[in-house]
Amino acid sequence: MPEPLPISFLSDFGLDDEFVGVVHGVIARIAPEVHVIDITHGVPRGDVRAGALSLMRAVQYMPEGVALAVVDPGVGTQRRPIAAETPWGFFVGPDNGLLSPAAAIVGGSIRAVTLENPELILPSAGATFDGRDRFAPAAAVLASGQASLDELGPAVAPDELMPMVLPLPEIRDGAVEGEAWWVDAFGNVQLNVGPDELSEIGVSEGDTVDVVVGALKRQAVWVRSYGEVGPGAPLLHVDSAGMIALAVREGSAAEYFIARSGSSVVLRKT
Amino acid sequence: MPEPLPISFLSDFGLDDEFVGVVHGVIARIAPEVHVIDITHGVPRGDVRAGALSLMRAVQYMPEGVALAVVDPGVGTQRRPIAAETPWGFFVGPDNGLLSPAAAIVGGSIRAVTLENPELILPSAGATFDGRDRFAPAAAVLASGQASLDELGPAVAPDELMPMVLPLPEIRDGAVEGEAWWVDAFGNVQLNVGPDELSEIGVSEGDTVDVVVGALKRQAVWVRSYGEVGPGAPLLHVDSAGMIALAVREGSAAEYFIARSGSSVVLRKT
Amino acid sequence: MPEPLPISFLSDFGLDDEFVGVVHGVIARIAPEVHVIDITHGVPRGDVRAGALSLMRAVQYMPEGVALAVVDPGVGTQRRPIAAETPWGFFVGPDNGLLSPAAAIVGGSIRAVTLENPELILPSAGATFDGRDRFAPAAAVLASGQASLDELGPAVAPDELMPMVLPLPEIRDGAVEGEAWWVDAFGNVQLNVGPDELSEIGVSEGDTVDVVVGALKRQAVWVRSYGEVGPGAPLLHVDSAGMIALAVREGSAAEYFIARSGSSVVLRKT
Repeated sequence: MPEPLPISFLSDFGLDDEFVGVVHGVIARIAPEVHVIDITHGVPRGDVRAGALSLMRAVQYMPEGVALAVVDPGVGTQRRPIAAETPWGFFVGPDNGLLSPAAAIVGGSIRAVTLENPELILPSAGATFDGRDRFAPAAAVLASGQASLDELGPAVAPDELMPMVLPLPEIRDGAVEGEAWWVDAFGNVQLNVGPDELSEIGVSEGDTVDVVVGALKRQAVWVRSYGEVGPGAPLLHVDSAGMIALAVREGSAAEYFIARSGSSVVLRKT
Repeated sequence: MPEPLPISFLSDFGLDDEFVGVVHGVIARIAPEVHVIDITHGVPRGDVRAGALSLMRAVQYMPEGVALAVVDPGVGTQRRPIAAETPWGFFVGPDNGLLSPAAAIVGGSIRAVTLENPELILPSAGATFDGRDRFAPAAAVLASGQASLDELGPAVAPDELMPMVLPLPEIRDGAVEGEAWWVDAFGNVQLNVGPDELSEIGVSEGDTVDVVVGALKRQAVWVRSYGEVGPGAPLLHVDSAGMIALAVREGSAAEYFIARSGSSVVLRKT
Repeated sequence: MPEPLPISFLSDFGLDDEFVGVVHGVIARIAPEVHVIDITHGVPRGDVRAGALSLMRAVQYMPEGVALAVVDPGVGTQRRPIAAETPWGFFVGPDNGLLSPAAAIVGGSIRAVTLENPELILPSAGATFDGRDRFAPAAAVLASGQASLDELGPAVAPDELMPMVLPLPEIRDGAVEGEAWWVDAFGNVQLNVGPDELSEIGVSEGDTVDVVVGALKRQAVWVRSYGEVGPGAPLLHVDSAGMIALAVREGSAAEYFIARSGSSVVLRKT
């Protein structure tokens, strides 16, 4: 037996019910030696894009192994259950775009299969709970080395996997037109904008920027660290994921700028 | 030493305080080699029935070992702290009915004891926190094999353990009168009704059913999978635990049917 | 290699984002053999005092090893990132008082360093996320024995670490004037008052006490266990951490006494 791989597990199951525990239980029954790390189970319910972004931000910090991700509003429909191999390791989950950005960032899918091997699907008394019945067993056997990828089901071409279309910012009339794509629990607002786009419109660190969120116009200064502004003051910085984010020192940028995930955000040099 | 058993841990402690972490800590101090899996700690506070149902649904998916469950509104009163042995493994928790449905589903209690061995109760600076001081040590020594069941305290006859009385649906005038006994975080409403009861009143898969929740009458079609109805449409199906559940594709049945745990639900062929 | 130490991890990150998972991931990449126990991640955001109290209550129940704690409203400012050695083990986190009460309760800091070794700080695409980039690696190498404390950075005198000033109760005119310093998720209200202070004003177990929270005066009887009062009745007892706490049997003392963390509470014999 090779050394078992760790499983990194992300979902929108929440922690109020026993869903997450049951998935852990299924993995432990099949492969008790495998270490499972919970990335988060707080992805907004059914929000595939938010889950994909979270997994993409996290994956490079997780130990190489198996990423098990389930945000699956299409459960019970025609979307395929898949496993894909990348240079980082395996990705297991629904083929709805959830896995694509993370898989891409670690080198892309080399091989993929649909999870159709009936011996690796748990029987259910009723509707299939894919996280429990199909994805957990697949992750467990891949992590423990009990099965290889091609034993899980028929091959599917990696370029036939569902992509996740992420909106790109546009530069128009000296402004960057982007959007908020993550509001974290501290109220920080990450944009789909990188520092290069700000450079393109002539904004440098230390500059003040007009920030228009929806119909509200505010300002923020581009700083390197929170300590450069006073408590309660707004700022804009390159966040720990490398993206431009709005923040308020010891406060909530989501409240100050009245922003939420998906809000349009226009940045322009003041 | 035998191979250590895993502990599956369920409570209503929530995750906002350090209670769950402290129980993990106590187990790790006594038996660092034991793997602890959290089933859920989001059981509604003090809701013994909800905890019992959650444990019952989960237990068959957890690895054989020790189930540690604490939903204990009677802490500090006369209810007994117990451990029971079943064909699946051990159950540790308060004798208030919490453990009974799960223990029954895996074969029933063979032997039981009350947790009164003072050497296995942590001293407390004040009130006993039974999860930490009594149940965690008992689970840890059972899981690690440091003590046998009969070393934990005096025997109690399994048939003297507190049962959990679960309401049964009734069939009357061609209708099934049941109740909602679980609303999950997705808004799915599980009933205390199985597919056999629907068959008894002449309802088959594909039929439309009148669903009366409290004073509100709605309809739903009995389908096998969500994909058979359109997004936003209500449905009724055999859920992944084998029970009849109300659901709304990509929506919340709890909102659509205005149902919560305990609501009366009457089903009748349209 | 010595036996790896467990890491006990507390933060105000919440579980909605991937922050906690990423910290686990970083630790697993550096030291896959290390066991990480989550104390809680539900500390109110930026509330250093609440985090310090939670860590202090928990630490004596956690296995000796490394305590990794991050509640850090001053991230990006001049507060120092530190690691300290105590008789219990190591404490890693911001030098803002968070670690001090827990370190003191287990014997006090013997040696301390600031985390400035660039080889043990992860590079970031933007702002440093200290939990991920600085604290997690430090905890991982200490736990696994890959580095000793003095390899993490320059020494700092333990008595130069930031203390946490906790308010003491005062005895005046036959009353104890204290405050609520923890409201747990069950609504129990722990005070900064011990049983000795109640003795000083002539209150004994069994006595009824006037409880003035803000402008509201209520009464409660000092009991040993919940079972001594009826369901719904208020009480006062020595809680499982050894402090005086207000409680309501099968109810919420926070609601009954209209108390929250920081509320002034005056106790006097009725």
